[in-house]
Amino acid sequence: MPQHRLFRIIDKAIWEYKMISQGDKILVGLSGGKDSLALLHYLVKRRMQQRESFDITAFHIKTDITSGISNNLISIVNSWDVPLIIKEISVLERLKSGKKMNCWWCSTQRRTELNNYAMENSFNKIALGHHMDDILETLLMNMLQKGELSTMSPVVNYRKYPVKVIRPLCFSSEQRIIDYCTENNFISETCTCDFQSNSFRKEARKKLSLITDGDEQVKLKMLHSLKNVNLECLL
Amino acid sequence: MPQHRLFRIIDKAIWEYKMISQGDKILVGLSGGKDSLALLHYLVKRRMQQRESFDITAFHIKTDITSGISNNLISIVNSWDVPLIIKEISVLERLKSGKKMNCWWCSTQRRTELNNYAMENSFNKIALGHHMDDILETLLMNMLQKGELSTMSPVVNYRKYPVKVIRPLCFSSEQRIIDYCTENNFISETCTCDFQSNSFRKEARKKLSLITDGDEQVKLKMLHSLKNVNLECLL
Repeated sequence: MPQHRLFRIIDKAIWEYKMISQGDKILVGLSGGKDSLALLHYLVKRRMQQRESFDITAFHIKTDITSGISNNLISIVNSWDVPLIIKEISVLERLKSGKKMNCWWCSTQRRTELNNYAMENSFNKIALGHHMDDILETLLMNMLQKGELSTMSPVVNYRKYPVKVIRPLCFSSEQRIIDYCTENNFISETCTCDFQSNSFRKEARKKLSLITDGDEQVKLKMLHSLKNVNLECLL
Repeated sequence: MPQHRLFRIIDKAIWEYKMISQGDKILVGLSGGKDSLALLHYLVKRRMQQRESFDITAFHIKTDITSGISNNLISIVNSWDVPLIIKEISVLERLKSGKKMNCWWCSTQRRTELNNYAMENSFNKIALGHHMDDILETLLMNMLQKGELSTMSPVVNYRKYPVKVIRPLCFSSEQRIIDYCTENNFISETCTCDFQSNSFRKEARKKLSLITDGDEQVKLKMLHSLKNVNLECLL
C-alpha cells in the first residue's frame, strides 16, 4: 500500500519541527472527531515503522454536555493497541456563577485536564489534532478581534511545565483529513452540544474560505507567510 | 474651525513613529489623487502651526500613459505656497522589450524618480499618501501570493540611502480621506490609463472588505495586529 499523501504531509511537519524524538511519551488528545483520529492512526503507523521508539496513549475527556466517545471509536483504538484513558469531568459544575457555557470554556477545561494528566503521568509531549484550517482561522480571529498577530503554533514549549504541545497536522488542510477518514471508513463524531456559541470561529471559517477561495495552495501560501515574517515591513 | 478628525489621526501616526523632526526637508509625492492631496494639506497646516520648522516640496511625476496633474490641482498647491516640481518621464520607453506595461512597473519607475530627486536635492524625508486600506490590502497580497508576512511600513529606513520614507496617513481609512476631500471640495483625479492590470490589488481590496465587513474598527484591529506580533505563536 503506497503511503498516503496525508502521512507524507505529517512526516514533513514532524521533521521540520522535530516533533518526535527517541523515547518520547506522547499523550494524544482524542476528541472523538476525525482530526485526532487521523492523527492517532498516523502515530500508530509510525510506531510500527520504528523510525524511533516512542509510546502513545490516547486520552479522551468526557464532559456532562457532550455525548462522549462512541463504542465504534473505542474498538478502533483498541484494535490499534493503544491504551485509551477516558476521564469524566463536569464542565457545568466548574462554570463560574453568572457565566454562560461556551466552547472556549469547555475547551479550556479539557486542555487543563490533558495537561495535568500528562504531567502527573510523565508524558513529555501532548499531540493535538489541529490542522492548517484551524491555524488560519485562529490567525484571522486573533487579528480581527484581539488585534494580535498570533495563532496556534506547531510546537508549544511551556515555560513552566515539562511538557510540549505538538500539532503534527499543522500542514494539512481539513479536506485531506476528511478524505483520509472517508477512505478508511472512519466514522467520526462532531462535537455537538446545546451550548455552542462558537459563532466567532464559524465566522472565521467563512472568512478564510472567502479570501482563499477554498484553494489549498493559497492556504499553504498564507500558512507559509507565518514562518516568513518580515518584521521591518510591518508596523 | 475645529481640527478635523483626519488630522488628529495623522498627528497620532506622526507622533507615534516620530515621522517629522525640526529641520526636515520633506518631499511629498503628489500623484494627483485624493490621498496625497489630503496629506499635503495636512503638512501645510502643520507647517503653519510651527510645532517644528520643516520644509515641504511637492513632486509630481507625469508619465506618457497618464493625463497628468490638472490645472485646478496646480492652483491649489500654489495657493498653499508649496513649491511644485513636475517631472516628465516615459515609462513606455523604459519598459524592457517583451514586457507588458503594468501598475507595478509604472509605480516602480515613479518611486525611483522620487528617490533620486530627493537625494539629489538634499531632502531627508519622502512623504507618501498610503493609508490604512492600502497597507492592509498589501498585507493580504503579500500573505496570499508571496507567502510573506509584510506590508508597507509607516516608516522605511533605507540602508543605502540617506532618506526615509514616511506614511503619515497609515492610521486613516480611505473613507476618512474621501470625506475630508469632499468637505474641502478637493476634486481629485484617479490614476487611469489604458494599461491597468492591477487585478491583484482589486482582488485584495474586495477580500479586505469581506473579512472586515468594511468596518473601520475591525480594520484598525487588523492594523494593530501588525505591531502586536507574537512570534512564539506563529510558525
